[in-house]
Amino acid sequence: MKITVWNENRHEKTNSVVAENYPEGIHGAIAAFLKEEGHDLTTATLDELDHGLTDKVLEETDVLVWWGHKAHDEVKDEIAEKVKARVWNGMGLVVLHSGHFSKPFTKLMGTGCDLKWREADEKERLWVVDPTHPITEGLSEYIELEKEEMYGEHFDIPTPDELIFISWFEGGEVFRSGPRLNEARGRFFISVPGMRRIQPITIKKFNK
Amino acid sequence: MKITVWNENRHEKTNSVVAENYPEGIHGAIAAFLKEEGHDLTTATLDELDHGLTDKVLEETDVLVWWGHKAHDEVKDEIAEKVKARVWNGMGLVVLHSGHFSKPFTKLMGTGCDLKWREADEKERLWVVDPTHPITEGLSEYIELEKEEMYGEHFDIPTPDELIFISWFEGGEVFRSGPRLNEARGRFFISVPGMRRIQPITIKKFNK
Amino acid sequence: MKITVWNENRHEKTNSVVAENYPEGIHGAIAAFLKEEGHDLTTATLDELDHGLTDKVLEETDVLVWWGHKAHDEVKDEIAEKVKARVWNGMGLVVLHSGHFSKPFTKLMGTGCDLKWREADEKERLWVVDPTHPITEGLSEYIELEKEEMYGEHFDIPTPDELIFISWFEGGEVFRSGPRLNEARGRFFISVPGMRRIQPITIKKFNK
Amino acid sequence: MKITVWNENRHEKTNSVVAENYPEGIHGAIAAFLKEEGHDLTTATLDELDHGLTDKVLEETDVLVWWGHKAHDEVKDEIAEKVKARVWNGMGLVVLHSGHFSKPFTKLMGTGCDLKWREADEKERLWVVDPTHPITEGLSEYIELEKEEMYGEHFDIPTPDELIFISWFEGGEVFRSGPRLNEARGRFFISVPGMRRIQPITIKKFNK
Repeated sequence: MKITVWNENRHEKTNSVVAENYPEGIHGAIAAFLKEEGHDLTTATLDELDHGLTDKVLEETDVLVWWGHKAHDEVKDEIAEKVKARVWNGMGLVVLHSGHFSKPFTKLMGTGCDLKWREADEKERLWVVDPTHPITEGLSEYIELEKEEMYGEHFDIPTPDELIFISWFEGGEVFRSGPRLNEARGRFFISVPGMRRIQPITIKKFNK
Repeated sequence: MKITVWNENRHEKTNSVVAENYPEGIHGAIAAFLKEEGHDLTTATLDELDHGLTDKVLEETDVLVWWGHKAHDEVKDEIAEKVKARVWNGMGLVVLHSGHFSKPFTKLMGTGCDLKWREADEKERLWVVDPTHPITEGLSEYIELEKEEMYGEHFDIPTPDELIFISWFEGGEVFRSGPRLNEARGRFFISVPGMRRIQPITIKKFNK
Repeated sequence: MKITVWNENRHEKTNSVVAENYPEGIHGAIAAFLKEEGHDLTTATLDELDHGLTDKVLEETDVLVWWGHKAHDEVKDEIAEKVKARVWNGMGLVVLHSGHFSKPFTKLMGTGCDLKWREADEKERLWVVDPTHPITEGLSEYIELEKEEMYGEHFDIPTPDELIFISWFEGGEVFRSGPRLNEARGRFFISVPGMRRIQPITIKKFNK
Repeated sequence: MKITVWNENRHEKTNSVVAENYPEGIHGAIAAFLKEEGHDLTTATLDELDHGLTDKVLEETDVLVWWGHKAHDEVKDEIAEKVKARVWNGMGLVVLHSGHFSKPFTKLMGTGCDLKWREADEKERLWVVDPTHPITEGLSEYIELEKEEMYGEHFDIPTPDELIFISWFEGGEVFRSGPRLNEARGRFFISVPGMRRIQPITIKKFNK
């Protein structure tokens, strides 16, 4: 698959710890492990012309990975609209970290997209609530992550077309962690744990 | 209920037949029959300041009826965003005629909102597919409209949270005529036949 | 509302602690607090003729409350089928305690109805995930129960038509606690915490 | 795939026209064209011991095709329960002709399963309402069948988990022709046109 990893790439420029940890940028780190899985990788960042997302780049991208946090407002509406249109046209979209507030995501949802958030370093369990879904193949009844931030309900998105995982957090919250949003919105899958931390994620061509 | 009827009010200014048929404007005609049902009515039009939709007007509106056709692009993004935010906040929205392409509607849907359309004057039947839904109380198995335009599938909206009516058209099409869109999108109901023709519609406080 | 409380009434006959705590039977205790809320109460038990559920009783019942645990198999298929048919016809059904394995419930679901269970006395939080649903009116973001047993995922029921609450348990599980099952299944609501413990529950005419 | 075609095989014994048209029985005719597609075929009929559906046969069957019409009541509850349990366990089920009233199907649905029916020989169009679903790949906006019987709404099944096709009938009805029923019910797909007429159907391993 042709994957484009987009990053606002700002923390890397202003925070020396981030810069040290990610010498190639957060986008570079994500692209590196996805490349190892055999995909065809490109990166794009906010400060490039058209944020690096030209019509040609979008057209050739099968899955766009989006990492954003503090610069959502600097993304041009025009480019966000193009990303939205490309998703309608079949491109996958994986939003990472605070990507639930990114322009492409909120435009696709039509909702406020807010969620409960708590800085944390605690256990999370993603319970499988739809064991018939192909994405759960080979999983046991839950996935456990030892140290995670907390993203909790109420998550202000449209009713998911399918709900596959529900997260449990040590501190007392729950989260619809594996909603699938359907149809005109292009059948994409929001991998919420991947939204929070940069961790190896495997992107599969998930045909529904 | 406090109902605001919004109309782009352009055909009335450029087409003498429309002007004759609707001396008070299409908005005036709609407001008149809703008033008879005991509601509290206001109107607003595109050419007014802020399209007549000030913060105060929106705040005080329980249900906004939206009639648009050829001037969708002239609606300011800023005002459409305010309508969207007010819907999230509980205001009902009824889009009439070509309102599926109006800015407030497309922004709320997050999808393209296109549909199949055919100028027609033919029989439509709205079959009840969820007879347990309270809105179907007192209806028989279908509602028949003798002369209607055709709005058909595929209608490019998110998967409805509930599907209550399916339309059949003499000419060979079907339509998900009574979808309810849920949750963060404010539990509103798209009355599609009302979208096409100006006909007496009854707006009930439809609490879910 | 006319409410019939059904109970297998076996623990009361074999366990002296139960007998002491519920001198009028568990059904009597449930009926007592529902009566205080102004409803019209009847009770019925397994050992009565037709389990106390004659055609006339079922016909006149608006809501049937079902308490079962160890004698599910002794319920006659014929009576369970009548309960099912009456639910299709509009009667509400509230299953308490182990009622997820009761014949009327499993017949209505068409699924295995198993769930994860752990004897416990721990904190449960029911998070509201659909704050637009009328049943959530007046609630804050969650309901907290100090001491509860654990009923967890995977709960083997059909996909709920609406998901209103998700439970979090201190011990690490989650549960789809407020599913609504729709349509031909009669729009009933499974109040899961009520399933586990006998606690004052308020039954509202929940028209959808 | 290992496919078992089950048939009540009664019309063949009592109606000479049927016997002539289907010298190998309706099950034989269905099995023949499925075999041509490369599947591994077995048949089973009502009058065999255990209706030909032993534990071993069920265990080894990937997809069970069920043709029934006038002898639903003669199917033993015990066998129908085994079919249901096997569907829960992953076996596909395709019900043909009047199979919506067959015991395995009604037990799986938990609903009445009635539908509107009209003997007809008229045009049906199956409109694609979810063009993102993989099963629609390669289809245009509808499938047209020149001569069909009419199966119409209201169809008394649980709310489908996904709705992929809606049928239009020349005579004025509609039908949710491509519902997918999910999860605990084993992710099977009801191919309704196939329910009515014996026509070449292609069974694909439809992993969701």
